[in-house]
Amino acid sequence: MTTVREIRLKSRPSGLPTHANFEMASVELAAPGPGEVQVKNLWMTVDPYMRGRMNDVKSYAPPFQLGKAMDGGAIGQVTVSNDPNLKVGELVQSGYGWREGFNAPAAALQKLDPRGLPPQAFLGAAGMPGLTAYAGLLKVAALKDGDVVFVSGAAGAVGAMVCQIAKAKGHVVIGSAGGAEKVAWLKSIGVDHVIDYKATSDLNAALTEAAPGGIDVYFDNVGGAHLEAALNSAKLFARFAICGMISIYNATKPEPGPSNLAQLIGKNIRMEGFIVSHHFSMMPQFHADLAKWVAEGKVSWKETVFDGLDAAPDAFIGLFSGENLGKMLVKLG
Amino acid sequence: MTTVREIRLKSRPSGLPTHANFEMASVELAAPGPGEVQVKNLWMTVDPYMRGRMNDVKSYAPPFQLGKAMDGGAIGQVTVSNDPNLKVGELVQSGYGWREGFNAPAAALQKLDPRGLPPQAFLGAAGMPGLTAYAGLLKVAALKDGDVVFVSGAAGAVGAMVCQIAKAKGHVVIGSAGGAEKVAWLKSIGVDHVIDYKATSDLNAALTEAAPGGIDVYFDNVGGAHLEAALNSAKLFARFAICGMISIYNATKPEPGPSNLAQLIGKNIRMEGFIVSHHFSMMPQFHADLAKWVAEGKVSWKETVFDGLDAAPDAFIGLFSGENLGKMLVKLG
Repeated sequence: MTTVREIRLKSRPSGLPTHANFEMASVELAAPGPGEVQVKNLWMTVDPYMRGRMNDVKSYAPPFQLGKAMDGGAIGQVTVSNDPNLKVGELVQSGYGWREGFNAPAAALQKLDPRGLPPQAFLGAAGMPGLTAYAGLLKVAALKDGDVVFVSGAAGAVGAMVCQIAKAKGHVVIGSAGGAEKVAWLKSIGVDHVIDYKATSDLNAALTEAAPGGIDVYFDNVGGAHLEAALNSAKLFARFAICGMISIYNATKPEPGPSNLAQLIGKNIRMEGFIVSHHFSMMPQFHADLAKWVAEGKVSWKETVFDGLDAAPDAFIGLFSGENLGKMLVKLG
Repeated sequence: MTTVREIRLKSRPSGLPTHANFEMASVELAAPGPGEVQVKNLWMTVDPYMRGRMNDVKSYAPPFQLGKAMDGGAIGQVTVSNDPNLKVGELVQSGYGWREGFNAPAAALQKLDPRGLPPQAFLGAAGMPGLTAYAGLLKVAALKDGDVVFVSGAAGAVGAMVCQIAKAKGHVVIGSAGGAEKVAWLKSIGVDHVIDYKATSDLNAALTEAAPGGIDVYFDNVGGAHLEAALNSAKLFARFAICGMISIYNATKPEPGPSNLAQLIGKNIRMEGFIVSHHFSMMPQFHADLAKWVAEGKVSWKETVFDGLDAAPDAFIGLFSGENLGKMLVKLG
């Protein structure tokens, strides 16, 4: 028997989650059954979309259950194997996050070949956030030559990849992020104009100044005032890939949408929401492009790492005040 | 010399336009010069988009100028011709509305072949509003087999055509309109479920009841609460053609957008604004389909007619309280 800890949903938050919404518990893992393996988690991810799963509402991802372990992406290592397809010591990617270890059928896990990258990259730049950026920019927003691109949440796991993919393809990129450190990093990776929204009283004016001719593509991770400014700056036939609206995820009452939505009409704007799971077929193409861009020095990434399962709630809560530079991760192993 | 009257913009409205914003004036028409014709207008159109032109803001249509005649679509008859391409008595379509007559270069006018329809139909079902419905539904919303279609402003010039085109193609159609007369008419032309929004306290509940399985396509003429209800009822991969937002055209301060815009993400909704002028190339195909549908009895239309140029401001103002059943027109000839 092995004892591992897991984090359970103790209560559903109203507004910003607090420690009181989480509960640490210990569970005993028996020896894995036939066709099963036992895995020790090395890394887990916290992502903004998990906030929605803390509510008891139907959405694209099922809600977390009260009193049950939360879940999400994780990278682990096989410690005991009862299946010939996974050997002890091999790395696996799974949906069994928010816990130190677990037993699972080998068939439910994905063997991870890190291809020279650190394994936790597959929770960020080389994983779902990276593919989200790639599919959202190239397919949903249908990026084309000459497009001026605006990205909110530009220093986040998804946003930073959007910026760099657009730069790798030769576009003018305007990114918005909060705080001097993020601004400096985005400039260092080649973003043409960086708006520090926390230091800006008028986002509309800041975007107009950064993109006097307007924007063709907006990649939205934030919603709210950023979306309103993007509508004001949009050119004719602009395309908006709506990926996230972190500004409203903790709202306790409905937050009004942008007051300038009628601009969609005169400017013939296409605004399209998406979730990455509908674009998994692009993963091989994304990994091929990513390998090339990494080799050319065109794409790099940052991680903000919290240490140990105890720190996972803080890592998660920190997403909503923008504590992360790049991918927010929890190191478990 | 011929004396004709024209309506000029006297002042820019704040909120709903009033009679004080309009001014009647008389002008003398000289004999038309070489290559010119003189036209007596028979019909003029009033359309919601003209409200935007009363503001002094840059948009897809230029603002009306203070002290100058307003303009817009009109059907007239040539009374004097100084050009071999247009004969006296021929019908012409022009942008010289809001006046009883005018001189213009023949080359600036479009000769009208009514093809068995009443000429004023080319200001409505067979003209721009009809093409707006056709292009918005078939191209922008990309209607496909099995789609459940929701239409707001369903008894208006555009909305009623959207309903009938969708019915002609075999779809389930839910229309929203205000008042018993409109509801009865929409039912009589085959709309499956009609919501009387003026008699409904909860538009979300009404739409859920009409489309318990959700909607695939929303054709928006209204914005506001209708757009919010459509987002709530949208199915995965729903498409919204954003044609108009008459509910906010007279707003004196910014009206907040729908509070549930984040549903775009989980449902992968595409929301696309459009104006008809980008789809003029579809006109021949539209006219061919329309002729077939009219012959089969699948498409008909209503007109609400105000008589004489003096009544044009009332006709226009009446659009915003929904006084029109079908196309709002002013008969001049």
